Amino acid sequence: MRMLKKLMFLTPLALVAPAMAQEDEYRPDYDALIESQGDYAYAFDFFTTSMLWTVIAAALVFIMHLGFATLEAGLTQKKNTVNILFKNCFIIAIGVVTYALVGFNTHYPGDFNGWFSLGGMIGDLNADGGDTFGYGGLGLAMTGYGDFIFQAMFAATAATIVSGAVAERVKLPTFMIFATILVGFWYPVVGSWHWGGGWLGGLNGGNGFKDFAGSAVVHAFGGFAALACVLVLGPRRGKYTAEGVKPILPHNLPLAAIGVFLLFFGWFGFNGGSVLSAAPGPLGLVFTTTTLAACTGALGAMATSWVTLKKPDLSMTLNGFLAGLVGITANADIVSATGALVIGLIAGIIVVLSVLFFDKIKIDDPVGAISVHGICGIWGILAAALFEVVPEGAEKQFSIGGQLLGVVAVGAAAFIFSFVVFFILKLIMGVRVSEEEEHEGLDVAEHGVPAYTDHQ
Amino acid sequence: MRMLKKLMFLTPLALVAPAMAQEDEYRPDYDALIESQGDYAYAFDFFTTSMLWTVIAAALVFIMHLGFATLEAGLTQKKNTVNILFKNCFIIAIGVVTYALVGFNTHYPGDFNGWFSLGGMIGDLNADGGDTFGYGGLGLAMTGYGDFIFQAMFAATAATIVSGAVAERVKLPTFMIFATILVGFWYPVVGSWHWGGGWLGGLNGGNGFKDFAGSAVVHAFGGFAALACVLVLGPRRGKYTAEGVKPILPHNLPLAAIGVFLLFFGWFGFNGGSVLSAAPGPLGLVFTTTTLAACTGALGAMATSWVTLKKPDLSMTLNGFLAGLVGITANADIVSATGALVIGLIAGIIVVLSVLFFDKIKIDDPVGAISVHGICGIWGILAAALFEVVPEGAEKQFSIGGQLLGVVAVGAAAFIFSFVVFFILKLIMGVRVSEEEEHEGLDVAEHGVPAYTDHQ
Amino acid sequence: MRMLKKLMFLTPLALVAPAMAQEDEYRPDYDALIESQGDYAYAFDFFTTSMLWTVIAAALVFIMHLGFATLEAGLTQKKNTVNILFKNCFIIAIGVVTYALVGFNTHYPGDFNGWFSLGGMIGDLNADGGDTFGYGGLGLAMTGYGDFIFQAMFAATAATIVSGAVAERVKLPTFMIFATILVGFWYPVVGSWHWGGGWLGGLNGGNGFKDFAGSAVVHAFGGFAALACVLVLGPRRGKYTAEGVKPILPHNLPLAAIGVFLLFFGWFGFNGGSVLSAAPGPLGLVFTTTTLAACTGALGAMATSWVTLKKPDLSMTLNGFLAGLVGITANADIVSATGALVIGLIAGIIVVLSVLFFDKIKIDDPVGAISVHGICGIWGILAAALFEVVPEGAEKQFSIGGQLLGVVAVGAAAFIFSFVVFFILKLIMGVRVSEEEEHEGLDVAEHGVPAYTDHQ
Repeated sequence: MRMLKKLMFLTPLALVAPAMAQEDEYRPDYDALIESQGDYAYAFDFFTTSMLWTVIAAALVFIMHLGFATLEAGLTQKKNTVNILFKNCFIIAIGVVTYALVGFNTHYPGDFNGWFSLGGMIGDLNADGGDTFGYGGLGLAMTGYGDFIFQAMFAATAATIVSGAVAERVKLPTFMIFATILVGFWYPVVGSWHWGGGWLGGLNGGNGFKDFAGSAVVHAFGGFAALACVLVLGPRRGKYTAEGVKPILPHNLPLAAIGVFLLFFGWFGFNGGSVLSAAPGPLGLVFTTTTLAACTGALGAMATSWVTLKKPDLSMTLNGFLAGLVGITANADIVSATGALVIGLIAGIIVVLSVLFFDKIKIDDPVGAISVHGICGIWGILAAALFEVVPEGAEKQFSIGGQLLGVVAVGAAAFIFSFVVFFILKLIMGVRVSEEEEHEGLDVAEHGVPAYTDHQ
Repeated sequence: MRMLKKLMFLTPLALVAPAMAQEDEYRPDYDALIESQGDYAYAFDFFTTSMLWTVIAAALVFIMHLGFATLEAGLTQKKNTVNILFKNCFIIAIGVVTYALVGFNTHYPGDFNGWFSLGGMIGDLNADGGDTFGYGGLGLAMTGYGDFIFQAMFAATAATIVSGAVAERVKLPTFMIFATILVGFWYPVVGSWHWGGGWLGGLNGGNGFKDFAGSAVVHAFGGFAALACVLVLGPRRGKYTAEGVKPILPHNLPLAAIGVFLLFFGWFGFNGGSVLSAAPGPLGLVFTTTTLAACTGALGAMATSWVTLKKPDLSMTLNGFLAGLVGITANADIVSATGALVIGLIAGIIVVLSVLFFDKIKIDDPVGAISVHGICGIWGILAAALFEVVPEGAEKQFSIGGQLLGVVAVGAAAFIFSFVVFFILKLIMGVRVSEEEEHEGLDVAEHGVPAYTDHQ
Repeated sequence: MRMLKKLMFLTPLALVAPAMAQEDEYRPDYDALIESQGDYAYAFDFFTTSMLWTVIAAALVFIMHLGFATLEAGLTQKKNTVNILFKNCFIIAIGVVTYALVGFNTHYPGDFNGWFSLGGMIGDLNADGGDTFGYGGLGLAMTGYGDFIFQAMFAATAATIVSGAVAERVKLPTFMIFATILVGFWYPVVGSWHWGGGWLGGLNGGNGFKDFAGSAVVHAFGGFAALACVLVLGPRRGKYTAEGVKPILPHNLPLAAIGVFLLFFGWFGFNGGSVLSAAPGPLGLVFTTTTLAACTGALGAMATSWVTLKKPDLSMTLNGFLAGLVGITANADIVSATGALVIGLIAGIIVVLSVLFFDKIKIDDPVGAISVHGICGIWGILAAALFEVVPEGAEKQFSIGGQLLGVVAVGAAAFIFSFVVFFILKLIMGVRVSEEEEHEGLDVAEHGVPAYTDHQ
């Protein structure tokens, strides 16, 4: 008599059945499930497995938000930890909610002008064949809700990237407004250019812009939004002094390491889920290229920082993993193992040089977000053209020029929009905490509580 | 010649095959696998995918125990951290072991009187068709071991909820005995009323009691057991003074944030796995409603606490995620996206008011477990009736009255049993550490070691 | 027009399709996917589900590396935390990269002499039927890349085990060289004896050596390599004094607890993935036995340490989980639930006695790696013979003698090789940091930065 829990998955098809049901009694329910697939019943098992992967991948992308939160908190000062955690809680919450209210249907507007179409709230995505293989066509072996939840987890990422770069001095209410606009409105608009079937599809001589899981439309988007905000905001007080750059040490490196490993873990969902089905060939390739690039990214950053900084630097190594991951994100499904090793290695070298460069020109990015997501995002897009494996007899599909044009467009869109919006917010309400608050730390000043207490 | 590792999954069907096996040689093994399914071979692939989801979901529910451990440790004082971690290690270990020894067969007794039937240890659950679709009928697309391990991971949760509420002053051996009785005996008994096919199935005019993944039989059960224990135990010394409530600050908020994000992550298994198959339609819906409610829960708690406490409160926001999750747990498969947004939002408001209320009446719950799991558990059960989506042409199934009756019965059963048992333990061996130990901290006093050392 | 992202999973089969594709238009693509499986199309859905499980399991094994990193960092001194995290970053990175360059094809050399065959870099593993059920035969329901990535995640584990044992005094460059040789060369060679179809297959009267997921070829291998290194290296200064053993307290027990829970979580992939398919029967059994043994391991260690040390010891309890897990790793697919409970319990007792024993003979292993992985690895191998469930009518397959011979061979190979290599490195470049560096801590001395700062 476990029928209640037993049968609920068939809702609303389920009929109440007696306990210890015999074959004849419930077999029709399975048949009903198959029957509900209509013309797509022939592929039901493949569809089911692929959809399962989609929701698991969504869960993995979700855990990246814990990765971002702990990485950002770990790399900054103790006195601003609560503030960073609070911002990250807000971003994932508002990101998902605005994506349901407006983002999803803006991101995937169906047939549109290629540039912009504002969508409304999601409805019953299981209706009208939304729970069959018919939803979205073959390449999208998931239901409407599967599609939504996977994309919703991506959406909050862009704002999270900004969060790290503006940490330790941004005014909380301003950031909350900015993040809401960025994730709820501009991210899906720019994303629609590529994933929504917009104008980016015509690049590379009409062959389309290659950005597998979002080196451009997620990472470079976030990285260049971050750059704009940092320019409006200015550096943390006391970092760039008359006597030179005064490094502000991370307050908790184990927390930062937890963050990077969780991001790496979640990236299996980010890239692997972007296969958009459980097709075994591409899935294994994407897991392999993603892992290899992350690992050579770490080795590349480790070596480069050891040479330039004369010590084995943990923060740089951690960012090296992420650099490799961002670099492979645009091209994980079209490069070879060797290609992945090289892409990651170069990304690892780039990220160290980029972090040092931004520090030199006094652009203060406490976690290296602009370098990791922005610069390595560009690299990933270019690498798609450079390392594309061309099957025998086929022609090369992607060009450096087309790829560059696409990523510049995305980056510029993120930068300009963010600069304008953040600048307007600066005029209206200010973007920066007071000098006293920055000195005291945002945790006690804004949140009334320290992150750590020692009361024994 | 990779045969040893290769063939082991077919044990005991496997025949030793030569390396580089040819099609003809191993195809019979696959055929044998299919053949072993007997009459259920027709659904083997769906069954395999569903069973895979069940064990992955079990792993996700497992990680919730790390979430509970870190959340509880993070929200309490530094000096009691080892004690909390130790308790959580014990709970997951004893919870799983007692569930194998007695719990599973008590929880799912088969045909019984509807109230109570004590079961024995699990046997070979793969035997007698336990590894086919025939096990448990269609709605339970998992093997016997899959069923066991998924439910075993749930079982320890109830005791964990209590652990947080009694933290920082409960006597360790007393708690260990209580937790063993609660998780090994009373949890499966009360659970059998609903999931085991007991009397709760007759509520709502015979349509059954709606508690999808356990807002009542897991969360409210744990929350009201916690309330009983806290009443017997009394508040932490120094919290409620003549001059008013003296807040005891959390010692490590990053740890608490890690806990909440891991709980959210694990909840995908808790709710998603409760679909009891990989049926794509319900699976996508449940992932979506679960996520939306968690996110509006956080936003609701954020706003409510900002208004009442005049600051952006991280602890309340974290509890808001959990409130939304508990609220959606009873109804995730029968509400719409809009319903989920509202259910979570209200849960987030409720949890803040409830935490403030319990503090006002001097019921000291260091982590807010009674509010999160008990009060929001009730809300989730009621919400099932309020937000149930009724398909066109169908009739509403669940009533407020029936739902309320069910959750009150479960909550009362948990409360009364816990109060009596904990009170008897108080008389026999005491439930509270000495004043000195509480002052010194349980880590050094009971465990002989601090959680953190600073020896450089 | 979501075609770009939609269709990419079919690369290179995909044809550019119009938006809102109709059934007739994309059905051939699904057919093409099936067709690409050739003779194996009949099992495509089972293959797809199994391959999905393989890559998810690989991700779970990946997260064990975060578990090792946090466990090792948590159990040691604050001043050496950065160094431990850096080593763990290096190990996963170099482990995966060397496995691609040489390890995989050495580990699985195909037909060889049974002892040694050096392989080259992996090529396109999807080619030549590598993405069909034909790859590797039935028991290996994964593609070539799936096989690679799952095994690559295992490979780094052996070196990680050593990392914990030599912590707080090993010279970084020396360790990096040693770890590279161990993981890139010797681990795959010794592994090939068993999993690669080598001479171990002839043990137990020709029935093969039973080591399901690697109690011997991963854990005992790592544990005895660790023992060798510790003997060459010597204990941490100040631990074994004239006045007796001076315990060096762990600096962050929450971090250690996070590590153990993540290892437990990852072990579902380690053992569960070793089923090498999603066959429902074995999968449920392996999840259940793995969990039960971990839990009785914790209870066994808890009880044993409470009796011997007169206090409820958290570190021992944490190691008890791992002891149970290592103990069940060799035999998880051939024992009963009762067998698993007993195997774990004994492992939990063994690990406490072993840790105390090694401390008594002044072999300094800061995290207990030799006991957990080495000694409990042996126990797991023996337990395979002791607790093997023999189906009615069949004969017992594994003997104590054969199992012992196998694990001694693997352990001795790891020990001797490591001793020789580490000793040579000692002569060439030294294996130990200077007394001053050890006193100051490796973080500031070698990495120039502390793990935690308190700058407010």
